[in-house]
Amino acid sequence: MRMFIAGMDGYLGWSLAQHLAGRGHEIAGADALYRRSWVEEMGSTSAIPIVPIGQRLQALREHTGQSIPFWGGDLRDYSLVDKIFREYEPQAVIQLGECPSAPYSMIDREHATFVQINNLTTTFNLLFAVRHFVPEAHLLKLGTMGEYGTPNVDIPEGFFEIEYRGRKDYMPFPRQAPSWYHWSKVHGSNNVMFASKIWGLRATDIMQGIVFGTRVDGGSDDHRMRTRLDFDQAFGTVINRFSCQAVIEHPLTPYGAGGQVRGFIPLRDSMQCLTLALEHPPKAGEYRVFNQFEETYSIRDLADIVRKEALTLGLKVDVVSVENPRAAIEAQSHHFAPDHKRLLDLGYQPTRGVSSEVRTMLEDLIPHRERIAKHQDALLPDVLWDAPRRTVNYLPDSDDRDWIRRASDDAMLSVEGDART
Amino acid sequence: MRMFIAGMDGYLGWSLAQHLAGRGHEIAGADALYRRSWVEEMGSTSAIPIVPIGQRLQALREHTGQSIPFWGGDLRDYSLVDKIFREYEPQAVIQLGECPSAPYSMIDREHATFVQINNLTTTFNLLFAVRHFVPEAHLLKLGTMGEYGTPNVDIPEGFFEIEYRGRKDYMPFPRQAPSWYHWSKVHGSNNVMFASKIWGLRATDIMQGIVFGTRVDGGSDDHRMRTRLDFDQAFGTVINRFSCQAVIEHPLTPYGAGGQVRGFIPLRDSMQCLTLALEHPPKAGEYRVFNQFEETYSIRDLADIVRKEALTLGLKVDVVSVENPRAAIEAQSHHFAPDHKRLLDLGYQPTRGVSSEVRTMLEDLIPHRERIAKHQDALLPDVLWDAPRRTVNYLPDSDDRDWIRRASDDAMLSVEGDART
Repeated sequence: MRMFIAGMDGYLGWSLAQHLAGRGHEIAGADALYRRSWVEEMGSTSAIPIVPIGQRLQALREHTGQSIPFWGGDLRDYSLVDKIFREYEPQAVIQLGECPSAPYSMIDREHATFVQINNLTTTFNLLFAVRHFVPEAHLLKLGTMGEYGTPNVDIPEGFFEIEYRGRKDYMPFPRQAPSWYHWSKVHGSNNVMFASKIWGLRATDIMQGIVFGTRVDGGSDDHRMRTRLDFDQAFGTVINRFSCQAVIEHPLTPYGAGGQVRGFIPLRDSMQCLTLALEHPPKAGEYRVFNQFEETYSIRDLADIVRKEALTLGLKVDVVSVENPRAAIEAQSHHFAPDHKRLLDLGYQPTRGVSSEVRTMLEDLIPHRERIAKHQDALLPDVLWDAPRRTVNYLPDSDDRDWIRRASDDAMLSVEGDART
Repeated sequence: MRMFIAGMDGYLGWSLAQHLAGRGHEIAGADALYRRSWVEEMGSTSAIPIVPIGQRLQALREHTGQSIPFWGGDLRDYSLVDKIFREYEPQAVIQLGECPSAPYSMIDREHATFVQINNLTTTFNLLFAVRHFVPEAHLLKLGTMGEYGTPNVDIPEGFFEIEYRGRKDYMPFPRQAPSWYHWSKVHGSNNVMFASKIWGLRATDIMQGIVFGTRVDGGSDDHRMRTRLDFDQAFGTVINRFSCQAVIEHPLTPYGAGGQVRGFIPLRDSMQCLTLALEHPPKAGEYRVFNQFEETYSIRDLADIVRKEALTLGLKVDVVSVENPRAAIEAQSHHFAPDHKRLLDLGYQPTRGVSSEVRTMLEDLIPHRERIAKHQDALLPDVLWDAPRRTVNYLPDSDDRDWIRRASDDAMLSVEGDART
């Protein structure tokens, strides 16, 4: 299948290009390379060194034998999108071309506006281009489990049957996003849902859990083929950030008690799921939503897993909570039981075992300790949800850490059994 | 109270400025005057002649004895918003500065993107300015009942208690908007809800029904004080458009069978409701949603009301359906029972009687027949939801009109009794 990846230079985009090409698909991509400068702006860099885009494409062409058309540019510019669709006529369009960071969107007005307008405009341009040039193509958009927030009821896959005052309907599940970035994803989901309805487009909206890991199945050892791995407060997701902290023996730093429960998925499984969705496109006019994650964990649990795996490699790390920069919005103890059945129905085979994935990641990161240590100031958050920027404090020791443990235990009790299996 | 009206030159903005000043409030406003050019772009003009903004402000100053600070400019430009808030320090901010047209947003990609980005950016700028300069101020944002779509269950005021798989939560009611414009309002509502939550702002989000009428209570006969009245497909709302059709004896043109049921509110009542909301601000951190309409009617019923009132003035008009340009999204027969209790609780006294309001409107419009006749090509829609622009056809006569009547009767039956009282 002829596939176009918007945002091919990113953590997921670069991994997916290799994975899809390995499955025999024809690949093209575009990227404005903003992720590289956003991470720089956060005072950080990729823990795994990555080469310039030209060398990346050269390597990908060598390894796949494909020509890999690539457009370096900004998809907010419709004239570029027009040119790409005219020249390439994709059969599937994968929207990874958005700014993916909640803290980045919370820095200030400029960043909030940039993230929402950037994400809305690129998705708009892709929707209109699909309609105009390739109305039968499948648009797969990456969303996030964060769109749902943490309601006190189970989370279905996008839609649910409700009964209200004696009448019934099948409706979109309400979204309660926790950042300007997450709301940009909700706005985009709504726009894609509407376009599918009025124009009969085929669309898949992926509510993805938090991704972690350095490896994809069948990945190459060629250093030019490695995907990036961020650890700064804005672009480093939590397990990746904990793993980078571990290899430099920096304390692992849950936000607050760490009782927040989230869904997680290894990078290799994310690739497997996205590929399944692409190889099983929806019907014309169908807008489908997949909750894409493997298991749910509390942040505190994850810190313990990373700490233990690090210890087997001779790394001694402590777990010390810091103030939660998102305290204004984030419950420390809550129900969390999202459905995730539709990808399993399509044949998704979960890797299982966050521990072994973390171990591989730690081994991959150990050679790059110095890069991480050099940028360790980027590890602690200074973007607060409800106050001006300042680096968060470690939470006071003994008493507080007992409290942290208690709160964390409480959180565990409130998690439904079936959500953790 | 010191009030700032974003979009003061519009249909509602100009009316509200007069109404609030009449209640003794201190008024300031801003407008980029885009509404005037959007209506021109649609090949139309205001049926009620309006004077240039300079003369309007002069008249308002004479009538109120107030200085009425006014900034002519685009609120997408934050430096302007910064200047306004620094100089005026409003105690209430009324967001009427959005592009308010569904058909305008459905013209093409450029218009869709413009409407969403314009509406999101201006609201963002106001939110951040409130937070920075006047965190205790009340932000009142005009939304629309259209955000909800037409679900098969009752529509609460913004939020509802649900039970799902045996657990309960109080959540935002799902939105199913029928155009890019309506989605821009949903995106804006979501952003305001989030800002209230993280920053403790006071916000009221008005889900307004379709407004109609030419008059406000205590309005002046000075021609410089009259508000605009549009009748083109994009900016003319349905009763206003029917009334303009009636005075030139043009057929009234429901879209399809006209079985669509919507909530309506006279302009004078809209002013009354907005004023009530402003004079009873929410608590810090409270985001409240009011459904603001008086009565629900089917479009077919409204056409009959306008036809009958016109007849008493010696105007003979027929009701002839046209193809529904929104057929891709709009149900012709559906449940529609929205709550509208919160404004009544605050003291809203509905005017009641669409007929007398329509009669006044017809009398106001008769002197301007020639202006309307000159732009009558703007009356019929050519913006289709799912196809390129072309003027819609009248639906074939006899058989079809029987069918139209039947479908309309069916729709009536499906409307809950209590929604119509």
